[in-house]
Amino acid sequence: MPAGKIRKMAENALLAQGVTPANAHLQADLLIEAELRGLPSHGVQRLPRLVARLRAGLADPVASGVARETRPAVFTVDGARGLGPVVMMQAMECLASAVFTQGIALAAIRNANHMGMLAYYAEAAAARNLIGIVLTTSEALVHPFGGTDAMLGTNPIAISIPTGTEPYILDLATSQVSMGKIHHHALTGTPIPEEWAVDAGGRRTTDPEAAKSGAIAPFGEAKGYGLGLGVELLVAALAGSAFAPEVGGTLDATEVANKGDVLILIDPASGEGSAAGLAAYLDRLRASRPADPARPVAVPGDGMRARRARALRDGIDLPDALHDELKALAEG
Amino acid sequence: MPAGKIRKMAENALLAQGVTPANAHLQADLLIEAELRGLPSHGVQRLPRLVARLRAGLADPVASGVARETRPAVFTVDGARGLGPVVMMQAMECLASAVFTQGIALAAIRNANHMGMLAYYAEAAAARNLIGIVLTTSEALVHPFGGTDAMLGTNPIAISIPTGTEPYILDLATSQVSMGKIHHHALTGTPIPEEWAVDAGGRRTTDPEAAKSGAIAPFGEAKGYGLGLGVELLVAALAGSAFAPEVGGTLDATEVANKGDVLILIDPASGEGSAAGLAAYLDRLRASRPADPARPVAVPGDGMRARRARALRDGIDLPDALHDELKALAEG
Repeated sequence: MPAGKIRKMAENALLAQGVTPANAHLQADLLIEAELRGLPSHGVQRLPRLVARLRAGLADPVASGVARETRPAVFTVDGARGLGPVVMMQAMECLASAVFTQGIALAAIRNANHMGMLAYYAEAAAARNLIGIVLTTSEALVHPFGGTDAMLGTNPIAISIPTGTEPYILDLATSQVSMGKIHHHALTGTPIPEEWAVDAGGRRTTDPEAAKSGAIAPFGEAKGYGLGLGVELLVAALAGSAFAPEVGGTLDATEVANKGDVLILIDPASGEGSAAGLAAYLDRLRASRPADPARPVAVPGDGMRARRARALRDGIDLPDALHDELKALAEG
Repeated sequence: MPAGKIRKMAENALLAQGVTPANAHLQADLLIEAELRGLPSHGVQRLPRLVARLRAGLADPVASGVARETRPAVFTVDGARGLGPVVMMQAMECLASAVFTQGIALAAIRNANHMGMLAYYAEAAAARNLIGIVLTTSEALVHPFGGTDAMLGTNPIAISIPTGTEPYILDLATSQVSMGKIHHHALTGTPIPEEWAVDAGGRRTTDPEAAKSGAIAPFGEAKGYGLGLGVELLVAALAGSAFAPEVGGTLDATEVANKGDVLILIDPASGEGSAAGLAAYLDRLRASRPADPARPVAVPGDGMRARRARALRDGIDLPDALHDELKALAEG
């Protein structure tokens, strides 16, 4: 199905809940952009829950958050239950003048709904010719290295670095996999690799059903755990948001979202490097000797861009049930 | 051997090369602190090379770098061939007033010698009640995920977050292991795990000798590669430093150090969180269910602090050859 058609349905579903046209456009764009990049877990399958949250008053259809300038280069934002992308893009606007004046600026956000795919904001920063670092926290889904209880969020990190041509875009969860992927294995009855998760009893498991009530491993063992924990602490320290075990409101339709988000923007023009040098180095990486001659070395963001171009041409494959649900929501 | 005795030898070795007393104290302190934390690869074994660099004019015994304020919250620093810790701590001083005024501040450094153990600077930031992020680049030692050529530095990341009690201190290389560890295996004739490295021909190897002329894997597969590459690009973009394949001057005594370093400081008082909340959460992590009942869950920094306390009490175990070399250098 063409992306434009799905976008229209998603926008209408939001408009039907009293979301302003600009906010509906932005929220729908985030979901469609995730679909285009082959990330359906962050795509329109999130919409029914979002509509339920709007209906329950847990998401505000109009709010874009209230920013407070605590220092010339730091803003704290009360998201006022606004839609995630609405609050984040408003925070980015808010930093835009500070970052050009100060060279670096930071916004710490709480009380905003789910931010979705962080690459979206990293790309928005790169489009403004800015280095961007985006961090967000979540429900407790990940166990510490050496532990078995779900104590940390999946705590993703996105980074954008302008290079003159296509920007460097990194977007990674600090968990070994997403809970969405484990649910997908459960749906299709496929076992999961043993290093992905533990069951509720804290034992390594290959059963996706058992993993759903257990905890996901951090990526990269102790190092990935340290990074995920760093995100957990940094966001809570600056946003005053809850820690993972108390976080709710991103996967349910019953709780206010109390996780936090941090956006750091840096103006590369305040530094000494050249964007052209970065692009040339990335091309050398791509041309370097691959482990498998049939698979050239890739740079993060390459695959995403290729999938997006393909999906814009060929359309997005939407499961029938989801399509019908969207259609019904779009009709109000 | 008591840490104080080794410190004295290290200081004297530097003083003998015309290093100022304050600079000698700082450089020796960095090396001793690495020894105390059980990181001999970043300890006094670095000193003979540093002395050779001072003798060759590749390291300046007096310089502390020249900072330029490009924006109120961004400084670029020409390290003027100064000793790594001297230039970095000078940059931290330089940011100290900016970070309290602006809330966040950044320094991008080039032309400085090896920074050594980054945890040192993270701890210094935490001691000032600041969140610190420290990045540095290095010679090409790491291959891209899916690649086999050494194209990236080990590109470590250190993060400090004050918690009211002991700060959160993270310090990790984005490589699977350090080249130092591979050299240690070569010295002791112990094979290395297959996932650590490739040989010069790009084949996975368990032979540490073969790995020395090959490349180390990034940690955490594609994600760790993405982070290491993010550090490579971010540092080069801001410091104007060289990319890994052209970097020299941290492992040799023949090249000027042309890698780069970035320091970001954030004043948590500009945010909305509470340090006490962070400490309580870390204690809950430590008390959470371990995978092995005999090994409680740890928080990054815990092991380092325990090793340091032990070494302060029991002394540092220095190989005889290194001790004799230090003694000779200390006598000028």
